[in-house]
Amino acid sequence: MTYTVAVVGATGAVGQQMIKSLEKRNFPVGKLIPLASSRSAGGTVKFQGKAVTVLEATPDAFEGVDIALFSAGGGVSKFLAPEAVKHGAIVIDNSSAFRMDENVPLVVPEVNREALTDHQGIIANPNCSTIQMVVALKPLQDQYGLERIIVSTYQAVSGAGSQAIEELRAQAAAMLVGEEPVSNLLPVGKLDQHYPIAFNAIPQIDVGLENGFTFEEMKMVHETKKILGDDSLGITPTCVRIPVYRGHSESIYVELKENYQLSEVRSLLENFSGIIVQDDIEQQVYPMPIDATDHDEVFVGRLRRDLAHPKGLNMWVVSDNLLKGAASNAVQIAEALIEDHLIRR
Amino acid sequence: MTYTVAVVGATGAVGQQMIKSLEKRNFPVGKLIPLASSRSAGGTVKFQGKAVTVLEATPDAFEGVDIALFSAGGGVSKFLAPEAVKHGAIVIDNSSAFRMDENVPLVVPEVNREALTDHQGIIANPNCSTIQMVVALKPLQDQYGLERIIVSTYQAVSGAGSQAIEELRAQAAAMLVGEEPVSNLLPVGKLDQHYPIAFNAIPQIDVGLENGFTFEEMKMVHETKKILGDDSLGITPTCVRIPVYRGHSESIYVELKENYQLSEVRSLLENFSGIIVQDDIEQQVYPMPIDATDHDEVFVGRLRRDLAHPKGLNMWVVSDNLLKGAASNAVQIAEALIEDHLIRR
Repeated sequence: MTYTVAVVGATGAVGQQMIKSLEKRNFPVGKLIPLASSRSAGGTVKFQGKAVTVLEATPDAFEGVDIALFSAGGGVSKFLAPEAVKHGAIVIDNSSAFRMDENVPLVVPEVNREALTDHQGIIANPNCSTIQMVVALKPLQDQYGLERIIVSTYQAVSGAGSQAIEELRAQAAAMLVGEEPVSNLLPVGKLDQHYPIAFNAIPQIDVGLENGFTFEEMKMVHETKKILGDDSLGITPTCVRIPVYRGHSESIYVELKENYQLSEVRSLLENFSGIIVQDDIEQQVYPMPIDATDHDEVFVGRLRRDLAHPKGLNMWVVSDNLLKGAASNAVQIAEALIEDHLIRR
Repeated sequence: MTYTVAVVGATGAVGQQMIKSLEKRNFPVGKLIPLASSRSAGGTVKFQGKAVTVLEATPDAFEGVDIALFSAGGGVSKFLAPEAVKHGAIVIDNSSAFRMDENVPLVVPEVNREALTDHQGIIANPNCSTIQMVVALKPLQDQYGLERIIVSTYQAVSGAGSQAIEELRAQAAAMLVGEEPVSNLLPVGKLDQHYPIAFNAIPQIDVGLENGFTFEEMKMVHETKKILGDDSLGITPTCVRIPVYRGHSESIYVELKENYQLSEVRSLLENFSGIIVQDDIEQQVYPMPIDATDHDEVFVGRLRRDLAHPKGLNMWVVSDNLLKGAASNAVQIAEALIEDHLIRR
């Protein structure tokens, strides 16, 4: 049994990884339909050794599509996702357009796969920073309950798309020969001010809000509550862009509801699907973005008992933001839909 | 009235900045004596437009020295600082050798200048990460009291010395042309494993300890308690190296003992000596390492009320680790000693 799969935004940073993930995870693709804006249509993408022509993403392009993976921005998703559903496709959307819609499941398969049951055609893929955090927190929630979370992120530029990767590269090259870096994109393309990311850290991801937080930070707050099914959970994020190409890192403080043993925490994490524990500071073993790149797992280390709070636990969580943070989580959702017989044919 | 000032480690990353700070802050230097290891002795450093010969750092080199600024590692300090004191100099030591010694004041002039009064010849300059944090916390401690702190750092490579700056530069250059980066130094020169810092994040600064924290993290714990004079203060640090040349950033969560108004916090910070507030996320105003480089101040922004705790406050604090984090704090200590008549002639 195979499926016709459309990838919307097929030429973007995440779209390209979606196609690679379908391939790498042996997803039963009968036919791949790469879709993009009219500007990118006509080019080709490689899939299973063959060049496949990119078509323009229009409502009619979804005719005969079983599963449509969207990663072309919120505007495209808002317009085209309902059209794809009308044409009979199930949409797995990587934008923030539908994530907080109460009729749309927001899913990380290892964490809340059961939420897929009620889907109405659109399933939302969470924000990259949220996904890796909830994977690391879920086994702790199940065993001890979660009181509150304080998280500071170290986010890669690829979260802002292919052009941001190029911008970091060009800025670094310029600065190495003593030239001024050119900044056109980060922290937020559509805003007025752009700052260099090469050899810098920018404490802004997405637009700033009146409450002093950024939209990225509030995504982490709202999405984490929805996925973990706990509106009373306290969450304080600080989201920061650093000069890394791929792999988001997170320094997480979590206060549990019950007392814990560190050895038990380590064992819960080690036995949780999708987590790899790399934790031995004395032997210099811990996760780093360069090691997490190209892997689907969430890497957890620097596990240590808080010095001030008996139920406080600290950890360092790293994952490839383009894979588990986006593309491979979307493909895993599609896999779960098939396994759980939730896909219409 | 002028003073004979020795700089030990004059050719290192911090030593060079000490000499620049003496110059820039118009410190009353009668004679500068740059000292270094025998390997670097014989070279010259520039001071007030003239080349000054670097001498070998031996006990006799401190003859006639009024003030000796040390930044040549803990081993050199342990051996030579007592010798300098014997020869009549006051030592301001940037290493961690004497910081937790109860007979040695650990001083950030804006925060605990009064601790200088009891000095016995050696004064310790705190760790770079600690200095910028205690400056930002002090006005809050005075007004509300501090309950606990959770801090994640984003530290520049220059904290590991001149060679680490070169290592980042060489690694970035190699990776931009597709070559493998060579790692000889970071995270900790003397340890077995070295990892690339270019386009990466390393959650280890200084050696790992049995309690799961690193030595750098425990420095922040112990030094902050000593400087703020509060042994009951809860402190949880996560120290991370990122590919930035100069300027440490810190994401700080602080729980105050009393309720606060955000506007009052902003005003307390704005009126505190040595702090510059850059805080308007909606207008994209916040501190960044590239802006803090070459400045003596501590920059504070991203001020916002915690979403989960009524007495919780979040902020983003950036400062030049070679200046306020090391060289200029040392020179400010020397200035305070003179102003407070605590220097023997």
